[in-house]
Amino acid sequence: MNSVELYDVFELRLPAGAQDVTAVFSQGETSVGVHTFPLTEGEAAVRFMPERTGTWQYRLGEQSGQFEVTPARDGNHGKVVADGCHFRYQDGARYLPIGTTIYAWTHQDDELIAQTLATLAAAPFNKVRMCLFPKSMPYNHNEPQHFPFHRDAEGGWDVARPNFEFWERFEANLVALRDLGIEADIILFHPYDRWGLSRLTREQNLAYLDYAIRRLAAYRNVWWAVANEYDFVLTKDNADWDAFGEKLSADDPHGHLISNHNGITPYPKRDWLTHCSIQTKDVVRSKYWRSVYELPVIMEEFGYEGDIDFEWGNLTAFEVVHRAWASVVNGAYPTHGETYWRADEVLWWSKGGVLHGESPARFGFLKDLLYEIGDLDAGLRQSVGQDPNGQDPGAGGSDSELDRAAQWFNLVMGKLTREERVNAMLNMIPPMATNPDHALTYFGRSRPCFKELHLPDDGTYRVEIIDVWEMARTVSLEAVSGQHRLPLPAKEGIALLVTRLSGPSVTHF
Amino acid sequence: MNSVELYDVFELRLPAGAQDVTAVFSQGETSVGVHTFPLTEGEAAVRFMPERTGTWQYRLGEQSGQFEVTPARDGNHGKVVADGCHFRYQDGARYLPIGTTIYAWTHQDDELIAQTLATLAAAPFNKVRMCLFPKSMPYNHNEPQHFPFHRDAEGGWDVARPNFEFWERFEANLVALRDLGIEADIILFHPYDRWGLSRLTREQNLAYLDYAIRRLAAYRNVWWAVANEYDFVLTKDNADWDAFGEKLSADDPHGHLISNHNGITPYPKRDWLTHCSIQTKDVVRSKYWRSVYELPVIMEEFGYEGDIDFEWGNLTAFEVVHRAWASVVNGAYPTHGETYWRADEVLWWSKGGVLHGESPARFGFLKDLLYEIGDLDAGLRQSVGQDPNGQDPGAGGSDSELDRAAQWFNLVMGKLTREERVNAMLNMIPPMATNPDHALTYFGRSRPCFKELHLPDDGTYRVEIIDVWEMARTVSLEAVSGQHRLPLPAKEGIALLVTRLSGPSVTHF
Repeated sequence: MNSVELYDVFELRLPAGAQDVTAVFSQGETSVGVHTFPLTEGEAAVRFMPERTGTWQYRLGEQSGQFEVTPARDGNHGKVVADGCHFRYQDGARYLPIGTTIYAWTHQDDELIAQTLATLAAAPFNKVRMCLFPKSMPYNHNEPQHFPFHRDAEGGWDVARPNFEFWERFEANLVALRDLGIEADIILFHPYDRWGLSRLTREQNLAYLDYAIRRLAAYRNVWWAVANEYDFVLTKDNADWDAFGEKLSADDPHGHLISNHNGITPYPKRDWLTHCSIQTKDVVRSKYWRSVYELPVIMEEFGYEGDIDFEWGNLTAFEVVHRAWASVVNGAYPTHGETYWRADEVLWWSKGGVLHGESPARFGFLKDLLYEIGDLDAGLRQSVGQDPNGQDPGAGGSDSELDRAAQWFNLVMGKLTREERVNAMLNMIPPMATNPDHALTYFGRSRPCFKELHLPDDGTYRVEIIDVWEMARTVSLEAVSGQHRLPLPAKEGIALLVTRLSGPSVTHF
Repeated sequence: MNSVELYDVFELRLPAGAQDVTAVFSQGETSVGVHTFPLTEGEAAVRFMPERTGTWQYRLGEQSGQFEVTPARDGNHGKVVADGCHFRYQDGARYLPIGTTIYAWTHQDDELIAQTLATLAAAPFNKVRMCLFPKSMPYNHNEPQHFPFHRDAEGGWDVARPNFEFWERFEANLVALRDLGIEADIILFHPYDRWGLSRLTREQNLAYLDYAIRRLAAYRNVWWAVANEYDFVLTKDNADWDAFGEKLSADDPHGHLISNHNGITPYPKRDWLTHCSIQTKDVVRSKYWRSVYELPVIMEEFGYEGDIDFEWGNLTAFEVVHRAWASVVNGAYPTHGETYWRADEVLWWSKGGVLHGESPARFGFLKDLLYEIGDLDAGLRQSVGQDPNGQDPGAGGSDSELDRAAQWFNLVMGKLTREERVNAMLNMIPPMATNPDHALTYFGRSRPCFKELHLPDDGTYRVEIIDVWEMARTVSLEAVSGQHRLPLPAKEGIALLVTRLSGPSVTHF
């Protein structure tokens, strides 16, 4: 009997021409319908990712049979799923996205693709944002190796005739990423086009999606990014994006993650969105998006390490690392990108190759820390300010100092519009992300020379000072409780991690 | 005959008890009524700032006489007035505010006050934000030397009984600033109070303002800042602030500048506001405020150089200098402050003393540059982006590339709400401030390794690279026109200054 590893691809083939058959895979009460697709000029295929071990049956037209699904080997945890405002692998293993951006790496020549994969093998990133269609914009003047479709007689794209060479190559790259433990965040549409691929009709786009789902959805490391910068694609509107999102949600038999990345305005909340992929420099708003969408938030494009002539691509490594940490303590996951100018136009952000920057090591340090401490939450929790008006000793009354401070804060907030209130909260609340065993704050470009810590009296805690650039963790206080004045190095890029050793969780300090 | 210098204080005295007389000062058709005020226990006085040279007459109850107003000596340019979105001295001389913040310096002991003045004499700042009432908050625990009023029998403040020692001292400090060429931006109300001065009734507050106007308005370097952080003063509402602003506007015979500084939300547009004094870290919004208020904008409190435990007071010198330049290229004027922790609690921002930081020299460099090139304008001018969808060579049509780019920008913008559009414009438009002879841009934390310059073909221009931290100006191109690819040092804190040598003005490059 055939066998396949859990979460791997089980494939059946049949002669070309029979491509519109639906295969049914079943095990006990579970039954999954999967559509066939043209695989080569002479063959069709159907692909299925078994999500449970044991014996499965299949029926495909006249064919039927069974196969054995063997347990997953080390490092195979299945697909990534959303879980509240976080992610996890479907087998329950920890997954925290620390991704990078290589839009057009699969459209480069074999040598460059091999170099990119070698770089990724040594890099910390566990997700790659990558376009299915080729990319046209500055630093992307070379032609792609292949296109996803053949052209019709008039020179337009014939979406009914997939270019098999393109798709074979693309899925080989998916597999290469999978074998490196890297999620492929596949961008299905984007505006950066000189070949007319952004100008297909809605019907053509749906046919393209249909093929992509049938062909690619059985790869466990697939994520669907409906668009890069949906609002910059002027040939499509929200009715298109909804049609695409709904189709992906309805037709993908394996329920991969779905996002829709913005240029300016985050895409509205939709049932088919599994998480937010948000472009903004204003990473402190992460916790606002979380509270609005109640989904995981990945900050994708807060700016790249580099020195090119676009403001989105010329940040210092420190600034990029700073924005990554600011994202994390505001409850989101950060994404890397690199755009150092090169005469050969091989910039990592689009073509891959090798990394030149200083931020990847720091992303690795951050990733290791996060994997150690686990997912963190950061919300629009109310903070209290000190009521400056309340210090009149003659004012009397029985209010505690904290009550009076909270009153002041509420009174100030109460006078604001909703928009002003949100902005004020985001600016006034010290960013702090927590889970039951940890509380993490990051001072960013603030650089205090000390911090007054207020830890619970009925617990014990470890306090570490983290230098995010030097990648250094220093235990400053061990097994302490209550109030401490902690000296700090008065430099930018300092975080504080409080770990609970006993007693209550820390929600602020 | 008595004589007084133009824009200096002409003072008449009369016995106490006659304090409610109105003096009339006249020259030709001009006639100015000025109210008397109690000067000491035994005397009242009236003060008048003549704003024209020549012979003036006065009448004060039974008294009358005349005096000669002599021309202003070097360095005496009269009061500062608003002029569009800029300032100038009333004699037409250039005035660009590069201020600092020393809230409570007049409430410290004589030795510290003398030290503060010595520091200011050697510093670049030409304006000081300073409170009339004493200040109570962290690092401000010492009692003031004097209070502005005597207490009544019940321990409240008797605003009808000014504490002359307080006012003499305060105005001596005004004069000391004036003699250093420094404007005194007098903050009349603020929330940071433990003595009940923030809890006076509206009538008491108006009586206090009445006295302040009568006593201080004849000093040419007076500016009225109605409040520091008006929205944090919970004992007053906008009806109060309007009453105060309208009174200052109506009663000050010399029409000094009036602002009202915010904690969170800029004070609404009012006829009595002569300029905006805005607290925000988001200095890029300067050009938005300018376009809304159509008044000069001073960014006051974008954060201070220092290392204390408040996020508003622990920025590096570089970050403060960066925010200052970002303010300038967005059409506003920046303000300095310094908050390095000290065991003796003498922090410059509140008490004065000596400066410890590295930003003042950079404020001086910026000030010298601005005085050289003059006022700059920065508006919400439309910029054009490149239409990524328009690159299809098959799209055809006769539109120029620029037309197509502008169409794309308009289409993207047209889909946004007003709030989104403003935010997008502020983020997408390269900040550039211009006047007929200059165009200044600042890359901030962007650090491109080159810039494509597009200068007019029918003029000649000088291009300087400015390192805002190293305080270095380097002429990179001299007497050039047209297009140039200018290498840049790929570091943070770089500005570009284009100076017109001949031909048309540069509005963008």
